Amino acid sequence: MTFRVHVRVMPRAGLLDPQGQAVEHALTALGFAEAGAVRVGRAIELDVAAASPGEAEARARQMCDKLLANPVTEDYLLNVESD
Amino acid sequence: MTFRVHVRVMPRAGLLDPQGQAVEHALTALGFAEAGAVRVGRAIELDVAAASPGEAEARARQMCDKLLANPVTEDYLLNVESD
Repeated sequence: MTFRVHVRVMPRAGLLDPQGQAVEHALTALGFAEAGAVRVGRAIELDVAAASPGEAEARARQMCDKLLANPVTEDYLLNVESD
Repeated sequence: MTFRVHVRVMPRAGLLDPQGQAVEHALTALGFAEAGAVRVGRAIELDVAAASPGEAEARARQMCDKLLANPVTEDYLLNVESD
């Protein structure tokens, strides 16, 4: 079976996020004063062939640890679509 | 009230995604042959001060249309945390 996996990779809490700050300033300049605490990360979607959703998640977690996320500066969140 | 809004900005379906292809090749080279159809986009999180979740979503949608997403090449998905 194939499972669609959604990964969200975000800069770790407490670390500076210059891209997020730049977006926040741009939003303020555009009149969106109600926006704050902007963080910018990566969204990754992929198909994972596996026997079960649990196996797909385990493999996706290995992919994050080895390639998709930087373990020093980023956290990631996995979500396996079951269809 | 303040609502945490999660935005996922992805390359539109049917458009080439060179970054996704590069990640897919890298995953294959690392031994993750079960990965496929990789797409890479941006994950954005922000606080939006608003009177209701609906208002927060409407304002966040305007932010996406004006700054956060490229309407020609990207689709976005909004999710308002209600806490």
